[in-house]
Amino acid sequence: MKITQLINQPFMHNNTVEHFSDRLFVQVMIDFELAIIEAREGHSLIPAGILQQTKEALTIDMFDIDEIGAQTYLGGNAAIPFVAQAKTLLPQDIKPYFHQTVTSQDVIDTAMMMMLKPALKRINNDLTDILQACAILIESHRATPMAGRTLLQQALPITFGVKASQWAASLIAVLPNLTQLEQAGFYLQWGGPVGVSNEENERYELPQQVATLLGLSLPLLPWHTNRQPIHALASGLDACACAMENIVEDIALMCQSELGELAEPVIKGMGGSSSMPHKRNPVLCALIKTATLRMHGHLSVISNTTAQPFERALGQWHASWMPLMEGIALLAGAANYLKTLLQGLQVYPKRMAANLDLNSDAYLIEPLRYHFLEHPEQIYPLINQASEQAHKEHKGFVKTFFETITYSSVQISDYNSNELATLLSPLTYCGAADRQCQLIIQAIESIVAKSTSINK
Amino acid sequence: MKITQLINQPFMHNNTVEHFSDRLFVQVMIDFELAIIEAREGHSLIPAGILQQTKEALTIDMFDIDEIGAQTYLGGNAAIPFVAQAKTLLPQDIKPYFHQTVTSQDVIDTAMMMMLKPALKRINNDLTDILQACAILIESHRATPMAGRTLLQQALPITFGVKASQWAASLIAVLPNLTQLEQAGFYLQWGGPVGVSNEENERYELPQQVATLLGLSLPLLPWHTNRQPIHALASGLDACACAMENIVEDIALMCQSELGELAEPVIKGMGGSSSMPHKRNPVLCALIKTATLRMHGHLSVISNTTAQPFERALGQWHASWMPLMEGIALLAGAANYLKTLLQGLQVYPKRMAANLDLNSDAYLIEPLRYHFLEHPEQIYPLINQASEQAHKEHKGFVKTFFETITYSSVQISDYNSNELATLLSPLTYCGAADRQCQLIIQAIESIVAKSTSINK
Amino acid sequence: MKITQLINQPFMHNNTVEHFSDRLFVQVMIDFELAIIEAREGHSLIPAGILQQTKEALTIDMFDIDEIGAQTYLGGNAAIPFVAQAKTLLPQDIKPYFHQTVTSQDVIDTAMMMMLKPALKRINNDLTDILQACAILIESHRATPMAGRTLLQQALPITFGVKASQWAASLIAVLPNLTQLEQAGFYLQWGGPVGVSNEENERYELPQQVATLLGLSLPLLPWHTNRQPIHALASGLDACACAMENIVEDIALMCQSELGELAEPVIKGMGGSSSMPHKRNPVLCALIKTATLRMHGHLSVISNTTAQPFERALGQWHASWMPLMEGIALLAGAANYLKTLLQGLQVYPKRMAANLDLNSDAYLIEPLRYHFLEHPEQIYPLINQASEQAHKEHKGFVKTFFETITYSSVQISDYNSNELATLLSPLTYCGAADRQCQLIIQAIESIVAKSTSINK
Amino acid sequence: MKITQLINQPFMHNNTVEHFSDRLFVQVMIDFELAIIEAREGHSLIPAGILQQTKEALTIDMFDIDEIGAQTYLGGNAAIPFVAQAKTLLPQDIKPYFHQTVTSQDVIDTAMMMMLKPALKRINNDLTDILQACAILIESHRATPMAGRTLLQQALPITFGVKASQWAASLIAVLPNLTQLEQAGFYLQWGGPVGVSNEENERYELPQQVATLLGLSLPLLPWHTNRQPIHALASGLDACACAMENIVEDIALMCQSELGELAEPVIKGMGGSSSMPHKRNPVLCALIKTATLRMHGHLSVISNTTAQPFERALGQWHASWMPLMEGIALLAGAANYLKTLLQGLQVYPKRMAANLDLNSDAYLIEPLRYHFLEHPEQIYPLINQASEQAHKEHKGFVKTFFETITYSSVQISDYNSNELATLLSPLTYCGAADRQCQLIIQAIESIVAKSTSINK
Repeated sequence: MKITQLINQPFMHNNTVEHFSDRLFVQVMIDFELAIIEAREGHSLIPAGILQQTKEALTIDMFDIDEIGAQTYLGGNAAIPFVAQAKTLLPQDIKPYFHQTVTSQDVIDTAMMMMLKPALKRINNDLTDILQACAILIESHRATPMAGRTLLQQALPITFGVKASQWAASLIAVLPNLTQLEQAGFYLQWGGPVGVSNEENERYELPQQVATLLGLSLPLLPWHTNRQPIHALASGLDACACAMENIVEDIALMCQSELGELAEPVIKGMGGSSSMPHKRNPVLCALIKTATLRMHGHLSVISNTTAQPFERALGQWHASWMPLMEGIALLAGAANYLKTLLQGLQVYPKRMAANLDLNSDAYLIEPLRYHFLEHPEQIYPLINQASEQAHKEHKGFVKTFFETITYSSVQISDYNSNELATLLSPLTYCGAADRQCQLIIQAIESIVAKSTSINK
Repeated sequence: MKITQLINQPFMHNNTVEHFSDRLFVQVMIDFELAIIEAREGHSLIPAGILQQTKEALTIDMFDIDEIGAQTYLGGNAAIPFVAQAKTLLPQDIKPYFHQTVTSQDVIDTAMMMMLKPALKRINNDLTDILQACAILIESHRATPMAGRTLLQQALPITFGVKASQWAASLIAVLPNLTQLEQAGFYLQWGGPVGVSNEENERYELPQQVATLLGLSLPLLPWHTNRQPIHALASGLDACACAMENIVEDIALMCQSELGELAEPVIKGMGGSSSMPHKRNPVLCALIKTATLRMHGHLSVISNTTAQPFERALGQWHASWMPLMEGIALLAGAANYLKTLLQGLQVYPKRMAANLDLNSDAYLIEPLRYHFLEHPEQIYPLINQASEQAHKEHKGFVKTFFETITYSSVQISDYNSNELATLLSPLTYCGAADRQCQLIIQAIESIVAKSTSINK
Repeated sequence: MKITQLINQPFMHNNTVEHFSDRLFVQVMIDFELAIIEAREGHSLIPAGILQQTKEALTIDMFDIDEIGAQTYLGGNAAIPFVAQAKTLLPQDIKPYFHQTVTSQDVIDTAMMMMLKPALKRINNDLTDILQACAILIESHRATPMAGRTLLQQALPITFGVKASQWAASLIAVLPNLTQLEQAGFYLQWGGPVGVSNEENERYELPQQVATLLGLSLPLLPWHTNRQPIHALASGLDACACAMENIVEDIALMCQSELGELAEPVIKGMGGSSSMPHKRNPVLCALIKTATLRMHGHLSVISNTTAQPFERALGQWHASWMPLMEGIALLAGAANYLKTLLQGLQVYPKRMAANLDLNSDAYLIEPLRYHFLEHPEQIYPLINQASEQAHKEHKGFVKTFFETITYSSVQISDYNSNELATLLSPLTYCGAADRQCQLIIQAIESIVAKSTSINK
Repeated sequence: MKITQLINQPFMHNNTVEHFSDRLFVQVMIDFELAIIEAREGHSLIPAGILQQTKEALTIDMFDIDEIGAQTYLGGNAAIPFVAQAKTLLPQDIKPYFHQTVTSQDVIDTAMMMMLKPALKRINNDLTDILQACAILIESHRATPMAGRTLLQQALPITFGVKASQWAASLIAVLPNLTQLEQAGFYLQWGGPVGVSNEENERYELPQQVATLLGLSLPLLPWHTNRQPIHALASGLDACACAMENIVEDIALMCQSELGELAEPVIKGMGGSSSMPHKRNPVLCALIKTATLRMHGHLSVISNTTAQPFERALGQWHASWMPLMEGIALLAGAANYLKTLLQGLQVYPKRMAANLDLNSDAYLIEPLRYHFLEHPEQIYPLINQASEQAHKEHKGFVKTFFETITYSSVQISDYNSNELATLLSPLTYCGAADRQCQLIIQAIESIVAKSTSINK
């Protein structure tokens, strides 16, 4: 029983969603309970042999997962029917050792953390790949001029290299935090019914052992109603969503028919139009943006439910599950799509140059006047005439100026001199663009090196 | 492939979610395309017999729904692979008549509307039942005093009848709008690729005919990027969520162990505690509140994506699907749970009375002083003493006052007179509570009458 | 003491903000208290002459408004110090009749409603003017073809008339609700400390009389913690925000340097660039969009605070004040700016035509092939060649096709025939655009007529 | 011109809001421009003496701030009229050196960062004080038992010390990030019109020098449309809001009349009730919660506007100003109120004990049975009888049990033995509560030590 996936599935990451299955959720609940038994047995808090017996009794295939689902509403969470079902599967004499010193929120929170952690790892790996794709774009287009645009109006030139550098800069801003969260932001939950934990467990430092067994971090205290770990994940993910949204908004705008500066990679069956074969819809951009827009709503739910009363919340806890889990599945999808998009992005420097010439090269009037300071009486009227005409005809000023000169009787010996070429080159107005590209390439190299050494 | 339902399913309405299946989504897409063929064939815009042939070729069982799901990401919506698959199922010669004058957004939007409309009807029916449950509570408790509380502090008395009246008032405030939306808020979408529709279709008023065939309303214009219908649904649903949240917050607070004024209905297996058999967790409240908290996030997404550029949006459109559909499934669940909750709500007037006596009946000092205006020298010191002691011991002032008198040597002939009884009755301080109850009962009767006449 | 207005002021409506002053807030609190005294005196619940005496004692200039502000935090709302200060201004003997049967929430809620109502009226008037501006644009551009765009890609032609019709359709969708809210959505609040009102007040129907005196509506019950009126206003305003955002996003995109299809009105000092005199930044769009984006956040706060516990909330009530008041001030600003924008909008049909020819007229290949069905061997290769070349050079297909023919040896007698002209006219592909324009013009006329008759 | 502060002012921090004045905003804009001139003059990029002359010409009192405000809407930000006005104040010959290589977004963003940084410092200082107040509460109440509550129902005992530890744990979770943001999260913005900066400025590392002069951090690249710094601040602040909201929700619930376990500090004029002198409304809680609820809406705006197109956004940039600035002013207010609240919090261990005995000590039935395992035939019926009666009368089980024994003929020699006292002590069921308290006290000590050493 599930809401139609036809409207949800395409925005998520297949492997991640598969990993978020009911079956795996039950599996990690089992793993958590076993880890506790292992730790307690290891310190002789329960008789030897319980772990082995429990392991044998509680294989995933023994569970009726649909039945757990059907019973969940009775207690408000899946751990209650899971524990009940597990107990029916256990031999009578070892039942009491199962779920000892544990409360249902411990099971759900820990299971959630175990599910989510590998998904964030996958996102972070994709982000590193995306940065490498950015580095290639930056390197290739350090000297590719394009229009810089403010309030959607052409302003002064930039390079496409620096645009890709800005994309990378957003990701570079979020990656350290996401890496930190991946390594130390997924916490064990184990506080028992009201969070005060169990004196024996604490004395033997079992929480640390269980956390290690499960690949999770040890929190300062149980965090049943201190939901900062959830807020940190959600806001970290949302920051990442914003960084990706930033990139695809630029790309989608640059893909506009009238700009044509970029196109999405050619993928069989994707974004095409049967009647207009040259048309390519920015479908990857749409998929990614959808995910990021929805993430903002998920953050809003989590922001409004992070404060939770007393020792277990009524609703606020439950309301945070899906926003977090769906949020990470959406972002995993978006990151994967973005990797495809940037690795195969089609760049059209000619269109960038053409757009730059398009009536927005009026910023060159000033330096041109300066260049011809010596014979203003001849050239200045032509400059004015060209400026007016270019604007009226939505044409480039420089092109119009040269046409104007050609059709005039004026003879200017130096109008195609090297000096003039430099003057009229957009790269002249790109400030420190190249330096910025270099800076970002270095930053990416350093991130990639670190990531490679970690993943070895 | 879906995210684990163990964390999502309990908060939704089973029948609604079942109704929102992939299979039914494909079915309504078929229905929409068939309705268009029916209308066009009816006006001889296409040859006679196409409808019959198409109907025969396109039964739901012919479709490979998983394959549609798997192809959806390529175009960003399920209508594209649906149409493609449908065409492969059609005889060559009638293919061209399928999906004529239709764009994929027409299919998705219309299908969504068809899916959602019955779900809203179910919610509205449940709301009417909920109002009737309120009416019973109001009628039964018009004279049941309880503490009115401001900023969580006891203030002056109200009745439980008036509290239930306030609950009903919230629902009464949202129901007319929801009924209006149910009847006229689900629109046909049929504008073709860029929304200008087809001249012939319009000339023959086919959109009106197709809308009627599908049980939908006719919009003023196609609404591909005019998403006011979606905003209206989302904000209407959120208003309803808030009304329900209002009720369950009151109930959960009144269920607190220390107040004990209400308890959730006894449902086998629900909210119980094996170790503490008398304990009843307000699980229904938790389920309902979860749904309403999540609805606020869904509204936030829709509010932030309602403005959509040009003739079809890039992402904003896609991002609104799940919030709307999941929102309505959550609210359907919440309404259903709330019906159960209010129909079986356990009310403890004794606890209400006891809490009212609990150190917060100090508002009676003033009238008591006035009552004993004639012999202040005797009684006033006792009043002061009782006031101080009651506060210190967290006991009721009146009870303490009578104890004080008893242990004193003062003889007051009339201290248990009828006049004094009235003076000390909380109902004396309940203002127009009874009148308010009456008003709401009448309003509910009128709504129920109207609803019954409609549903006949 | 206030946060710098340099970052807030430009987005609001001057007159509205002026109307929302501290002074007027105190004035409406006075008005509310006086209306209650008037009603109670009128039914002899208090001695004759109290109203006159109170009126004389409580003129606005008697109040130390800064002191009220400074004391507000002590009780959490301004009504408490207002009432306290008022009492010090009143003669001893009439003090007891002031603020009788009233609680501070009554004062704040009613004062807020009185402040907000005229602001919504102003917005609605501006929306009517905006619709009239739309009607002029629609009428003028019913036959002005432009590119319809989906996912930011050119698709098929529409007209600018139909685009303006869509803008109007969004506003038409929100206006009836806003008008309804203006007329009946601002409620008196008068329930006393715990909302059960006063029996005498109710018996004499004083709430209705006070509501009438203040120009407000009578609620079914006091609504201290039934905040549906606030939710309705906020979601109505947000719907309006979305409609306006929809318009300015289209305009801003069409103002892009490369499209140049629209420009904002020329306003001295606005949006200009000293160095690039022809440049016009879409500043009005930016101002409007800012307001609408912030409104979404205000709705989110109200959505998350509508459920309020018991008889007065702790925080949720207080948190809703600014979002509502600032939201309406922002929307008043946005509506006013949008009126200016649409009344002076500069439309460039030539640029629309040019963009339409720009490599996206490939949709004409199909009909062109059909037109030359008789001599395919001659023309089809030219069509193919032109198609390929046009795409490569980001030029129009039709233009390229004619150039190709011109440079070829092919003689086509009819290639500039009337039939061909119609075939190649974008209007041929505009479906029912003209009919849609007509529909909207009629709808606007009807709204304007109704609005005029009301405002007479 | 401003919206009434009567509804906004009480929730903000006075000094912070004062610091956020128009005047100081203009002052920091001046400071930024002067710092740039200083740096450029220092590297002889402009003639010597410009800085001195500019400083003399541009003192804050020379500016007509209202006029800047009035002109702001024309360009959409205050930097444009500020720069224009500054130029009129400068001698003709040095005008060209003012605002060189700077764009208006540089001015606004940098000014905003300069305004906000000291406010965050103030918040962080208050948080440290709050943690110290927590430490005192924890230390004092390590052995003060109270009811642990889940879903608002009493469950098992905790101590008030561990509750305060949990409050502290939330703050400890957010503080490192906030400290990091205070030290390195406020960035210089200096990228010029399209963000590519100026080659000369970069070559001489002027941005680093200007950042140092202004006490800001140097970003990797200009961040005109890479708004991660804003997102990081907003989500860090929201996390802090949630931590504070967590605390005041607990406090407000524990202040309920029926619980009476806590009360807000006695502050003259605050939260009192003239008619009920012993009543104390949790006004501080209301003030704090209001601020935190509004912060969530501000985060929502920032989350939805972080992605910004091209080189300067249209609206998204502008929309983020107030949410950020008002958010920080609200949080500064909340932190300050919370300090007052926790430093003066009134704790009632007797009420905690009394509530714990209140019918929820049924968890003791189990150990009690075990204790009397030897003579079940005598005691077990009494246990059962007491259990039933206690539940029915909403009384404590233990108390009822002893009463039952007293009135029975049963003689139990050891029923008030030490062993039994331990058995019935709630501290026996508090798990590792004391250990948790210790852990948090150590963590606080370490934070305070670090903070003291920094602030020295």
